[in-house]
Amino acid sequence: MKVLITGIDGYSGWPLALHLLARGHDVAGVDSLVTRKRVKEVGSWSATPIPPLPRRLAAVQEVLGKEIRFYRGDLSDWALVRHVLETERPESIVHLAEQRSAPYSMIDVHHAVATQVENLTGTLHLLFAMKEVVPEAHLVKMGTMGEYGTPNTDIPEGFFETEFRGRKDTLPFPRQAGSWYHWSKVFDSGDVMFASKIFRLRATDVMQGVIYGIRTPEITDDRLLTRFDFDETWGTALNRFIAQAVLGLPLTPYGKGEQKRGFIALEDSMQSLRLAVEHPAQPGEYRVFNQFDAAYSVNELAERVARVAADLGLHPTIDHPPDPRVEAEQHYYNPIHEHLPRLGYQRTRELDDVIREIFHDLIRYRRRLAARQYVLAPTVNWRLPDSRPLLGARNAAGAAPAPAPAEPTGPSSANSVA
Amino acid sequence: MKVLITGIDGYSGWPLALHLLARGHDVAGVDSLVTRKRVKEVGSWSATPIPPLPRRLAAVQEVLGKEIRFYRGDLSDWALVRHVLETERPESIVHLAEQRSAPYSMIDVHHAVATQVENLTGTLHLLFAMKEVVPEAHLVKMGTMGEYGTPNTDIPEGFFETEFRGRKDTLPFPRQAGSWYHWSKVFDSGDVMFASKIFRLRATDVMQGVIYGIRTPEITDDRLLTRFDFDETWGTALNRFIAQAVLGLPLTPYGKGEQKRGFIALEDSMQSLRLAVEHPAQPGEYRVFNQFDAAYSVNELAERVARVAADLGLHPTIDHPPDPRVEAEQHYYNPIHEHLPRLGYQRTRELDDVIREIFHDLIRYRRRLAARQYVLAPTVNWRLPDSRPLLGARNAAGAAPAPAPAEPTGPSSANSVA
Repeated sequence: MKVLITGIDGYSGWPLALHLLARGHDVAGVDSLVTRKRVKEVGSWSATPIPPLPRRLAAVQEVLGKEIRFYRGDLSDWALVRHVLETERPESIVHLAEQRSAPYSMIDVHHAVATQVENLTGTLHLLFAMKEVVPEAHLVKMGTMGEYGTPNTDIPEGFFETEFRGRKDTLPFPRQAGSWYHWSKVFDSGDVMFASKIFRLRATDVMQGVIYGIRTPEITDDRLLTRFDFDETWGTALNRFIAQAVLGLPLTPYGKGEQKRGFIALEDSMQSLRLAVEHPAQPGEYRVFNQFDAAYSVNELAERVARVAADLGLHPTIDHPPDPRVEAEQHYYNPIHEHLPRLGYQRTRELDDVIREIFHDLIRYRRRLAARQYVLAPTVNWRLPDSRPLLGARNAAGAAPAPAPAEPTGPSSANSVA
Repeated sequence: MKVLITGIDGYSGWPLALHLLARGHDVAGVDSLVTRKRVKEVGSWSATPIPPLPRRLAAVQEVLGKEIRFYRGDLSDWALVRHVLETERPESIVHLAEQRSAPYSMIDVHHAVATQVENLTGTLHLLFAMKEVVPEAHLVKMGTMGEYGTPNTDIPEGFFETEFRGRKDTLPFPRQAGSWYHWSKVFDSGDVMFASKIFRLRATDVMQGVIYGIRTPEITDDRLLTRFDFDETWGTALNRFIAQAVLGLPLTPYGKGEQKRGFIALEDSMQSLRLAVEHPAQPGEYRVFNQFDAAYSVNELAERVARVAADLGLHPTIDHPPDPRVEAEQHYYNPIHEHLPRLGYQRTRELDDVIREIFHDLIRYRRRLAARQYVLAPTVNWRLPDSRPLLGARNAAGAAPAPAPAEPTGPSSANSVA
């Protein structure tokens, strides 16, 4: 199948490209490379060294013997979006090209606006270009489980039958997001649902759980590695805990640590996206997949990281700094996930095994973590956005003063890294 | 009370300013005047001649003996928004400064993007500036009953208690908007709800029904008139029907004409907004008012217009052209509206009386309607946006060819009109 991946240079875009190539699909990609810049903006980098994109593409050619056609550009550029769709005429579009960090969106008013405006504009441009150029194509849109928030009921896959004052209807499940970023995904969902209705587009809206892991079977060479963000803006709590353990620091679940979220291994997320691509929605159909396979509390993640760390001779303590976010620290959480299993989804990875695998990689890149250790402390506060100094020296309470960072590149030969 | 009205040059912003002044409030306003331009963009104008803003303000001074402090600018400009809030330090902000036309948002991809981006950006700028400058102020935000769509249940005021798989929660009522514009209002609602939570702002989100009427008791001079749009992009169905009757054309409810919506008279909408201003929400409170007082089907509106027209010696027929929108032509509709009556709201105007009043004004301005008669036919199709020629000559099926329009200004002495 001809697949276009928007955001192909990103954490899941890149391994998805490799996975689809390995399954015989034809892959093209578009990316503005802006995430590389924005990770630098907060003073961080990927623990895994990421070569410049041309070298990534050359490595794909060399290692897998396959070509990825690449377009550099931003989906905010309507002419670019039309050009890519006209040139590629994809059968399936996996849309991952969005600002994806909740803390980044909470930095200040400008980051909030940029997140919502860019994400909405890119998605609208894609929807209209699909209608005009490839109305039969199938859109697989990356959303987030965070769109739902943490209601005191089970969470259905997008829609539910409800009753109010004695009358019934099947309605979109209410969304209660927890950051400007998460709201941008809610807004996208509204636009995709509406476009599928008026343009008769095929659409799958993926409520993605938190993804963990660095590796997929296709990543057989360090040049094919995907990025691994561990700073408080771009990394997940699990990533931060493993980085803290490697550096001999306490693990820091925020607040009570009973916040629960849905999780899925990188490899299983790639399996899920492939299943969505290979089983397209019908014309005019808007379907929602809750894409995760287990829910864990933040404390549970910290405890599992500590347990695996102990096997490796590391013995981190667990601290509980105050929660900088506005979120329920204890809540009911039971989302339904039945659509993907019906398409054949099967979990292939267990959390502990993947944590162990991440440890092995991060220990190899320990020097890259140490050089950016100061990015692990929270400086974005949900209640007081724009309270943090952007760019330049950071010296938040509890964080080490930032020295002019050295540039160790670890075992990779890459000398320009994101 | 010190009130800032964003969008003060608009259809409801202007009479709201007069109404609040008459009730002793202190009024400042901001407007980019972009709606005047955009009405020209689709080849139309207001049936009532609207003087340039400086002359409107001078008339307020002369007729009412009151001053309105005015700032010209766009809420997309963060520096302007901060400047206005710092200078004015309002206690209440009535936020009406948004692109407000559903058909305009459906013209093509660029109008869709502009509508959503401008509306979201302006609202985000206001929310952040309030937090930084006037965190105790109360935001009254103009939304629309169209955010809810037409579910097969009653429609609560924002939130409802629901049960799913045996567990209960009080959740935002699901939104199912019917145009890119209506979705922009849904998105604003998400942002306002979230901001009230994290910034502890006071917020009232007004789900505004369709407003009808030109006059309020404060409009005692033609120079104080508010705009009256009758074209298919900026006017409402009721406005179009009355304009058609005045011009001797058939009235044209789209499709079956059983689409029902909530309506409220201009004067009663001003009463409602004033009640919201005078009874602010609590810090951190996000409350939703369904602001309408009766629901009518489009057919009912056409029949009432025809009945009043007959009293005036006009005898329009009623046609049913195909519905260019994607909407249910027959549906259940029963929204709840209890919050405003609890604050003392009482209906003061009846639909038939207001229709009669509009007829009297439009007959006076008949030449202005005749000069723009071609704007009455629908040219924006919900299923096929960007299908219409923008600007320049329009000659859609059924519409009269557009001559170079003359510039009759009716009884007003204004020679530059919007």
